[in-house]
Amino acid sequence: MTRVKRSPAELFEAALAGDRSAVARLLSLIERGDDDARTVGRLAYAHSTEGYTVGLTGAPGAGKSTLTSALIGHLRSMEIELAVLAIDPSSPFTGGAILGDRVRMQDHATDPGVFIRSMATRGHLGGLSLATPEAVRLLDAIGRHWILVETVGVGQVEVEVAGKADTTVVVVNPGWGDSVQANKAGLMEIADVFVINKADRKGVEETSRDLMQMLDLSDLPHDAWRPPILATVASTGQGVVDLWDAVLAHRAHAEESGQLAERRSFRLREELREIVAQRLGRRAREICSGERWEELTDAVVARATDPWTAADEMLAPVDA
Amino acid sequence: MTRVKRSPAELFEAALAGDRSAVARLLSLIERGDDDARTVGRLAYAHSTEGYTVGLTGAPGAGKSTLTSALIGHLRSMEIELAVLAIDPSSPFTGGAILGDRVRMQDHATDPGVFIRSMATRGHLGGLSLATPEAVRLLDAIGRHWILVETVGVGQVEVEVAGKADTTVVVVNPGWGDSVQANKAGLMEIADVFVINKADRKGVEETSRDLMQMLDLSDLPHDAWRPPILATVASTGQGVVDLWDAVLAHRAHAEESGQLAERRSFRLREELREIVAQRLGRRAREICSGERWEELTDAVVARATDPWTAADEMLAPVDA
Repeated sequence: MTRVKRSPAELFEAALAGDRSAVARLLSLIERGDDDARTVGRLAYAHSTEGYTVGLTGAPGAGKSTLTSALIGHLRSMEIELAVLAIDPSSPFTGGAILGDRVRMQDHATDPGVFIRSMATRGHLGGLSLATPEAVRLLDAIGRHWILVETVGVGQVEVEVAGKADTTVVVVNPGWGDSVQANKAGLMEIADVFVINKADRKGVEETSRDLMQMLDLSDLPHDAWRPPILATVASTGQGVVDLWDAVLAHRAHAEESGQLAERRSFRLREELREIVAQRLGRRAREICSGERWEELTDAVVARATDPWTAADEMLAPVDA
Repeated sequence: MTRVKRSPAELFEAALAGDRSAVARLLSLIERGDDDARTVGRLAYAHSTEGYTVGLTGAPGAGKSTLTSALIGHLRSMEIELAVLAIDPSSPFTGGAILGDRVRMQDHATDPGVFIRSMATRGHLGGLSLATPEAVRLLDAIGRHWILVETVGVGQVEVEVAGKADTTVVVVNPGWGDSVQANKAGLMEIADVFVINKADRKGVEETSRDLMQMLDLSDLPHDAWRPPILATVASTGQGVVDLWDAVLAHRAHAEESGQLAERRSFRLREELREIVAQRLGRRAREICSGERWEELTDAVVARATDPWTAADEMLAPVDA
């Protein structure tokens, strides 16, 4: 059997027809971020309008994967098809490999109603912030209208990615304080729903009080959504139905209040800004290389010209 | 008396003639980084060829200011005129104010042979990396051929600025380990001379051994400069003459080996690259604003176009 390399458009057609390996290939193209990625992005953009993203974030060990797995189970019991993006900015592993601590998700690995995929940055920070919305639109385009986006930590990048979901679930544990101290403010800002997972342990009450206090202090507008605080034991499934109901309640509020449309519009503008910034960055690297660049830098070093005059000349085509 | 606002060129003439307030004004223009700064930069660039910079960096509390003050005293005893730039990336204070912990430097505040100036970022990280070399060239142009550049901490920015000196002195204390743990590697990389200050305290031997071991591990090329390790008690002046001799020895080595020319050439190229990057950044902000930008982002949000097509249109003048 000869294996012909399929074009992005061919892969997209196959993905629409239900070919999972084609979806995996397209996600790899998106991660790579080159011209093919742009083609995939354009195809998916035209087809994606219904998808809804639920972000799950929290400190490592909070039980996000187990909770995600429990949510998958709940959604599948209602015959809802979905996709899961596991985002790990620090991991060099990508390509759909299910990471070590996601063993529980393997329960669903053979279920065609679930598409699970890990994404990493490949060392490129800007990469994830552009690749994630593109991946979401692709999954939406192929008919997965619920997309769970799980991020592994509570660092700057994770919080940023998680905060770009339509509904963001922040997962903490009883006595959460220490593990996320550094980014409590960031988490408070993005949370639409709080989950105290591992609620069979001591300290649920205190943690709940702590969160409520922080919400009181955060000075929400009078008519705004106030993040509910739920307790779950993901490993037994306890509280998972309530969690999903809270997600649905937030979605309804966001849709009715116009907040969802507003957020999405804001995110798209941000994405466009990021695309422009990245392309200008590439342009800068182009400008700062080549023969004329070498000549000019030599002239600056020899004091035959000054840095600003040299920059003027290199930037002339751009400043026009 | 009417006070006419002087142009950068007039200020520069006055500064060349010895007007200290004109120097202060010019440094403020450089800090501000606008078109006037560029004019000052060009004027200074044409006049600056002899200046030599000595960077001093180390953890807060290591005694850099006291050491700088002692060095000033030593240089002045030889009737050498000099300038001091105190760089504080975290401080909102600028404009030549002598900061709180630089009280000792005030010993020299009335000496016309010393020009002391504090510089801060004004919240702009790229700012310092461009403003510092410009300030150095201005001070050089007005005849201060020795410029001490003191940075307050051992963070990324401080180490970067300090590492751009012709000779970099890294100041540690006996038992230094903990305070600079985070950036030991960065400090090892930029050090041309190590000083164990406050050497009247316990632990000088261990610290010296520690540093020697790290130098052994750092795998210097056979013919390279090996940073000497000196002990000082800046508050009494002990060891300061030896420190200066070490600086002179490093300068001689750097000049003879061609390393100085190489470093300066590298730094100028980096500076040019930074100028290009900053200007493209400004261009990006221009592009991402205005009427056409608003129209295009609205079209993206309304799905009348996709982000890449919108970016293509906005970037057309730049991609030409």
